[in-house]
Amino acid sequence: MLHKYIDNVRAVGPRIHCITNYVTANDVANILLACGASPILADAEEEAEDIAGICSGVCLNMGTLNPGKLRAMIKAGKRANELGRPVILDPVGVSSSAFRKNSARTLLEEVRFTAVRGNISEIKTLALESGGAAGVDAAAADRVTEKNLPSVIAFAERFSAHTGAVIIISGEIDIVCTAEKAYVIKNGHLMMSRITGSGCMLSALTAAFIAANPENVLSASAAAVMTMGICGEAAYERMADTADGTSTFRTYLIDAVSNIDGDNLERRAKYEIC
Amino acid sequence: MLHKYIDNVRAVGPRIHCITNYVTANDVANILLACGASPILADAEEEAEDIAGICSGVCLNMGTLNPGKLRAMIKAGKRANELGRPVILDPVGVSSSAFRKNSARTLLEEVRFTAVRGNISEIKTLALESGGAAGVDAAAADRVTEKNLPSVIAFAERFSAHTGAVIIISGEIDIVCTAEKAYVIKNGHLMMSRITGSGCMLSALTAAFIAANPENVLSASAAAVMTMGICGEAAYERMADTADGTSTFRTYLIDAVSNIDGDNLERRAKYEIC
Amino acid sequence: MLHKYIDNVRAVGPRIHCITNYVTANDVANILLACGASPILADAEEEAEDIAGICSGVCLNMGTLNPGKLRAMIKAGKRANELGRPVILDPVGVSSSAFRKNSARTLLEEVRFTAVRGNISEIKTLALESGGAAGVDAAAADRVTEKNLPSVIAFAERFSAHTGAVIIISGEIDIVCTAEKAYVIKNGHLMMSRITGSGCMLSALTAAFIAANPENVLSASAAAVMTMGICGEAAYERMADTADGTSTFRTYLIDAVSNIDGDNLERRAKYEIC
Repeated sequence: MLHKYIDNVRAVGPRIHCITNYVTANDVANILLACGASPILADAEEEAEDIAGICSGVCLNMGTLNPGKLRAMIKAGKRANELGRPVILDPVGVSSSAFRKNSARTLLEEVRFTAVRGNISEIKTLALESGGAAGVDAAAADRVTEKNLPSVIAFAERFSAHTGAVIIISGEIDIVCTAEKAYVIKNGHLMMSRITGSGCMLSALTAAFIAANPENVLSASAAAVMTMGICGEAAYERMADTADGTSTFRTYLIDAVSNIDGDNLERRAKYEIC
Repeated sequence: MLHKYIDNVRAVGPRIHCITNYVTANDVANILLACGASPILADAEEEAEDIAGICSGVCLNMGTLNPGKLRAMIKAGKRANELGRPVILDPVGVSSSAFRKNSARTLLEEVRFTAVRGNISEIKTLALESGGAAGVDAAAADRVTEKNLPSVIAFAERFSAHTGAVIIISGEIDIVCTAEKAYVIKNGHLMMSRITGSGCMLSALTAAFIAANPENVLSASAAAVMTMGICGEAAYERMADTADGTSTFRTYLIDAVSNIDGDNLERRAKYEIC
Repeated sequence: MLHKYIDNVRAVGPRIHCITNYVTANDVANILLACGASPILADAEEEAEDIAGICSGVCLNMGTLNPGKLRAMIKAGKRANELGRPVILDPVGVSSSAFRKNSARTLLEEVRFTAVRGNISEIKTLALESGGAAGVDAAAADRVTEKNLPSVIAFAERFSAHTGAVIIISGEIDIVCTAEKAYVIKNGHLMMSRITGSGCMLSALTAAFIAANPENVLSASAAAVMTMGICGEAAYERMADTADGTSTFRTYLIDAVSNIDGDNLERRAKYEIC
């Protein structure tokens, strides 16, 4: 059942427009190529609409944001909305500055997102900024645990109802949900938090999975999250030399994405549907 | 005969000014260091002339272009022209937007390029934008094959005559030509298209080879293309672990450039001169 | 004695705000994560004060500088000064253009730096630009040798007295000094000069070490320099395959930083105090 989501990415080779930060841009481009997609990274507002117009998905990542990039994001997002193509938001570090909070609010007002991916703090801040019915449940603490899981899911479902987007909360336990249905995913490895770009790469991967599986946005998003988690596990398992560290892990992670197939995904996926 | 082109790069250590995209900037700087050159990456128009003035070659790469970068490119290119130093153009994704097409046309009008490197689609778009006698041969399809090779070479030679630049068309079969003479090169490996930056790295490498061999622009360009292709082959051959993937390939590719010498180049080069 | 400096970084996990170039931004973020710190890379002036305000150290790196980044640096630096938190300057390529020289002078006028790290040419240029009593000793040549070491130390001590910053001169022999006391460090490996980012990574590492050891700025800076040098040695020693080159070295260098502990640091440090 999960098989087809990655198979479709490799078969279709969706072209993804990323307006993203320069810290992890190389990793983002390489993870898209690794999964079979085709990246175009371009952040000038002068060409945002043209580029979005020739892509089958758009990924907007708020790292190293500036006002020009924000304008480009709005133009690219609106163009994709017009064309009925998926737009993913990664609100990197949204709680770190008033500028990012305001920018996130503007993006949520101007663009209709297909999916939003962040860690629990980022998603909480985003929900607060977007105001309205979503709110932030007091129990949605800064770390998702077995104990607060039900209340975090309830919060994510409300935020999905408010925005219309699939909500993806990444962490030790991942949550991927619409207003009605949630995947709880337990793949991944702690090493992923010791390199930069794990989140950015996952957001781009999610854009590719959705673009190649537009009729199944929720399941495709969940499959992207599982794929990244499984590749993180495989990368860690492959570290054999005691001198191996975080940089080798990063290499093995991208290697794993370039090699994973539907069978691996099917066999190693750890998830429940609530 | 090819021997000297890489030997000269290692002996001279040419300083190369790159105005380039942020996606592959790290790879570009590392490939220049790997071949023995010395990179300066700087894209502010405030310093473009100063930096170009202390370098022995300039490489202008249109990825993640914006109006400020374009102004810097024009200034750096003009300064290098004044000083009689080589300027290389990499028209990344030029067909993707009106902004890039217009920018490419402006660059071709304002700067005299020593060499232009792109894939067949990029070079075709560039030739169209530059108008005039170059035109685009109907037979210059979007993939160079044994069958359409003669007509693609004829097209590239006309574009070289029109611009005065060595034209480098990268792909499964590479073409490097002036108006009178063409190298057809068959080094390289398909894996190079599965990582970002292969093209950007080759353009920077070409700038280094030309800067260190200014009296032999065509042959030095061809030697750069062969060097990159041979290193791609060597990187692929080195992949022994079944878990090796695209990221390991990228590491091995840069490793290979840092280790290649004139003997390797001479022995493994696969080319014909037409 | 050195033990505690790295232990504190891993225990405290200082958050470091980097306004840095896009060439080595990924390496800088990864080296900070590898040593146990937490990077925030953000260069928009709209958020510079907010970001600096939530960080325990700021690292300002002049690579790929532009006027907007310079304004962000001044704001972030001033905010950190107000809060009494360390600010590190890396004057990348400061001698390459009038724009960088002027920018460096502005930064030295507007911001009080805790430490300044560069190679001998960069630090000499900086001292010249900052005028005043520091001057540049004629004997402070462009390479630090056993022979000119005393005069280079004297120059660095005067520049420290002039700026109030710990001065770090990186090279085959490293000097880390205040006006009264100098560490002469002989760790490191020549391979570090064959990859881009060794200097940028060291500056970021220094920011993390100072932020986690604010009561011992000089010794913490020296420990950061030794850590980087030791990791460079370890990375080189690990290169076993004849095909290993500069890219593998970079991977091993970051790996080494992610694995180094106080015992390694203590055991392998090579330094004298003058």
